[in-house]
Amino acid sequence: MTIRSEEAVARCRRLASFSEDAQGTRRTFLSPPMRACHAEIATWLKAAGAEVNIDAAGNLRGFYGGARPQAPRLLVGSHLDTVPNAGAYDGILGVVLAAALLEALEGRRLPFGIEVIGFSEEEGVRFGTPFIGSRALVGRLDEELLNRRDANGISVRKAIEHFGLNPAEIPRAVLRDDTLAYLEFHIEQGPVLEALGRPLGVVEAIAGQSRMEFVFQGRANHAGTTPMHLRRDAIAAAAEWILAVEHAAQSDPDLLATVGRVEAQPGAANVIAGEARVTLDVRHKSDDKRARVTDGLVRQAEEIAGRRGLSVRHSLLMNQKATAMDPFLLAQIEDAIRKTGCQPHRLVSGAGHDAMILAERVPAAMIFLRTPGGISHDPAESVEIEDVAKAIECGLALLDQLANSSEFQKRTRRA
Amino acid sequence: MTIRSEEAVARCRRLASFSEDAQGTRRTFLSPPMRACHAEIATWLKAAGAEVNIDAAGNLRGFYGGARPQAPRLLVGSHLDTVPNAGAYDGILGVVLAAALLEALEGRRLPFGIEVIGFSEEEGVRFGTPFIGSRALVGRLDEELLNRRDANGISVRKAIEHFGLNPAEIPRAVLRDDTLAYLEFHIEQGPVLEALGRPLGVVEAIAGQSRMEFVFQGRANHAGTTPMHLRRDAIAAAAEWILAVEHAAQSDPDLLATVGRVEAQPGAANVIAGEARVTLDVRHKSDDKRARVTDGLVRQAEEIAGRRGLSVRHSLLMNQKATAMDPFLLAQIEDAIRKTGCQPHRLVSGAGHDAMILAERVPAAMIFLRTPGGISHDPAESVEIEDVAKAIECGLALLDQLANSSEFQKRTRRA
Repeated sequence: MTIRSEEAVARCRRLASFSEDAQGTRRTFLSPPMRACHAEIATWLKAAGAEVNIDAAGNLRGFYGGARPQAPRLLVGSHLDTVPNAGAYDGILGVVLAAALLEALEGRRLPFGIEVIGFSEEEGVRFGTPFIGSRALVGRLDEELLNRRDANGISVRKAIEHFGLNPAEIPRAVLRDDTLAYLEFHIEQGPVLEALGRPLGVVEAIAGQSRMEFVFQGRANHAGTTPMHLRRDAIAAAAEWILAVEHAAQSDPDLLATVGRVEAQPGAANVIAGEARVTLDVRHKSDDKRARVTDGLVRQAEEIAGRRGLSVRHSLLMNQKATAMDPFLLAQIEDAIRKTGCQPHRLVSGAGHDAMILAERVPAAMIFLRTPGGISHDPAESVEIEDVAKAIECGLALLDQLANSSEFQKRTRRA
Repeated sequence: MTIRSEEAVARCRRLASFSEDAQGTRRTFLSPPMRACHAEIATWLKAAGAEVNIDAAGNLRGFYGGARPQAPRLLVGSHLDTVPNAGAYDGILGVVLAAALLEALEGRRLPFGIEVIGFSEEEGVRFGTPFIGSRALVGRLDEELLNRRDANGISVRKAIEHFGLNPAEIPRAVLRDDTLAYLEFHIEQGPVLEALGRPLGVVEAIAGQSRMEFVFQGRANHAGTTPMHLRRDAIAAAAEWILAVEHAAQSDPDLLATVGRVEAQPGAANVIAGEARVTLDVRHKSDDKRARVTDGLVRQAEEIAGRRGLSVRHSLLMNQKATAMDPFLLAQIEDAIRKTGCQPHRLVSGAGHDAMILAERVPAAMIFLRTPGGISHDPAESVEIEDVAKAIECGLALLDQLANSSEFQKRTRRA
C-alpha cells in the first residue's frame, strides 16, 4: 500500500504541473492543460483494464467492467479542475485514488463494474457557477448554464466545442440506470480529523447553507462632539451582533456561522459610522435547524438595532439545502475504515462537493482524508502518505464488502 | 437684538455664497472667494469704527480702539475658511458675531480695545494641516508649514504671495503683548445643548485626542470546514474589542471613544477573516485619564486576542494634549449667559478650535451656540435666530462685565 500511496501522491504532484499559469496550479473547465490531464489519467486507467472516453460535458470516464457483461456499476471519482493558485490534492486526489483502486484489483472482476470519473468542473471558477461536470450526470447541464459566459465572453457551449466535443451529446453523459452508487474520496479541507488524530472520516451529510447580508443603518456623526448616549453607531451595533452570531454557533457543534465581511461608512477614524454592512454564512446538516438559527439571528439584529436607535435590513443571497449521504454506504465505510486499524469519525461537510449533486439520483457517499493544518485552496495544501495508504486500503475493503453484499447489489438508480 | 441676530444670520448666508464651487460652499485658505469675504466683512467693521487690515498669514483683523490710546486689547473672532460642501455657520458665525458686537457698542469705547479676527485657515482642507491662521498669531507658522503644498503643488508660502501678501511679514502677525484674552463664539457642532434645551454653553476645555490603529491578526480559513472552536476569527475578536471600547467610554460622561473604521481581510462571505484593522479615537479633557483609558484598551485588545489565539498590534497616529479654557473668563461667561435669562452649561469641546492654539499665549474662552440636530460640516447646518440674539446679548453683557473688572484689565499676555 505504501508504494501505491507514494505513487498516488507523486501523480497528484505531477498533475499539479498541468496548469494554465506558468507559476502555480490553475486548471479550469476545458482549459488546455485539462487535455494533458485527461491523457495522463487515461493511460493509467487503460493499463488497469478500463475503457476510457471523454463525455460531452468534458468529464473523463473510465469503465472497468464487472464479472458479468450485464453487471451494474459503481461510480468512483472526484473533480479535475482547480481554483487559481491551487494545491495538488483538492479534487484530483479522488480521481487518482479511484485509479489506484482499479490497479490494486490487478484485473480481478467484481459483481459490479467500476466507472472512474474525473469531473470537468466543480470549483465554479471559470463561469462563476460550480458543478458543471456533475450536473451533466444528473441531467441539469441546461440551456441557461450552457449559455453562461466566462470573462472572455466564451460560453460553456463554445468552450465544449473548442475542446472538440459536441454539446448535442450532453444527454448521453447522464448516469446510466444501472448505477448503484457514487463514492468520492476528498481531502477534508478542514482541521477536524487532524485535531482528532484520525486519518479518515466519513461524511454523513453535506451541510445546507444560508448566505445573507445585513445592513445596520445608524447616523454618521462627529466622533468629538457626540456624547456616547446620543450616538447611533452602526459599527458598535454590528459588533454586538457579530458576537451574537458567534455565540449562537457555539451552542451546537454541527453549526457553523461566520461573519466574513464587514464594511462601514463613512469609514473615517474621527467619524461615527452611519452604516455597517456585514455578511452572514450559516451551515448545518439540518435545514430546519439552519432556518431556526438564521431566523433567530435576524431577530437579534432587529433587537440590537432597535435598542440602539438604529434600523437594520437583511437580504438572502443563498439558501442551499443540506444533502444526506447514503446511510447504508456510511455504515459500510465505517466498517472499512475500522478494517484499516483506524477509528472512523462521522463529519458534516461544510463545503459543497460533487457527491451533493450525484445524491439527487443515486446513493452517494464521501470519505475524507485528514488535511494537515486544514489548509486547502493554497499551494501549501498537503496529505500524509500514510493517510493515502489508509484510504486505498479502506477503498479495497469497501469494494470487497460491497461485492459480498446482496443488499448493495439489489440497489438501482433512485429516480 | 432680534434685528441684529436676523442680520447676523443673513450675513452668514450671504457669505456662504462666496464659494470656490458653483454649487455649495467651499472656501479654503486664500482662495479667490476669500478676498470677497474679506471685503464684505471689512465694510461692516469700518462702518462700526474699526481699522481693518489683512495680515501676512491672510487673517482679517479689524481694530476698534479703547477709551485710551494705550488701552490693551481683547481679541474676538473665529475662522473664515470652510470644509467642502460646508454649512453657513461653522467659523464664520463667530466673526459675524464679533462684528455685531462692535456695531452694538454704537461707538461706545471700553477700557480695552477690541480686535476682531477672521482666521484665514482652521479646517486643514487645502494643505492637510489645520490652524494656519491662528498658528501665525502664536509664532508657529514655521518654515515646515510654509513649505507644505496643496494638491496642485502650491505651497502655503506661494499661496500667500499669489494673494498679494508678503510671507516675510508673517512675524508681524504675532499677538501683541497687550492682548488680554481671546474670545470665540462657535456653533457646538454636537447635540448636547439641544438635548438640554439650552441656547448657549461655555467650553471648559478642548479635549485631548488619541488616535490609534489596531490590527488583529488571526487565521483566514474556510467558513464551511473550520469548526467554531478551531477558529482564529479576526472579525469576532475585533467585534469583542469594539464593544469593550464602547463600554469603557460609557463609564465617564466626559469620555468619548470611537471605532470609526473597520476593515477585514480577505473580506469574503465564506472565508473566516484572518485580519481586522480598526481605528480608535479617544477624547477627554484630562490627558491623564485619556492615557489610562487608551492603555486599558490596549491591554483589553491583547487579552481578547490572546484568549482567542490571535495576536494584535497597535500604532499611535495622533496624541494631542487637552487645552483648558481660562477659568476667570469661564465664570464671567457663565454670569453673562445668566443675564440673558438662560442657564449656562459647561461642556468639553471634542473638536479642535483656534482657541486651543491661542490658549498657548493668552487666556482663551469659547461660547458655543446650540446646533440643531448637532449637524455641521453639511449644508443642513443651522442656528436659531433666537440663539444668535442670546449670543449677542451675552457678548455685550460680557464686555460690560470685563470693562468693569479691574482683575481682567490687569491681565497681560501669559508668555
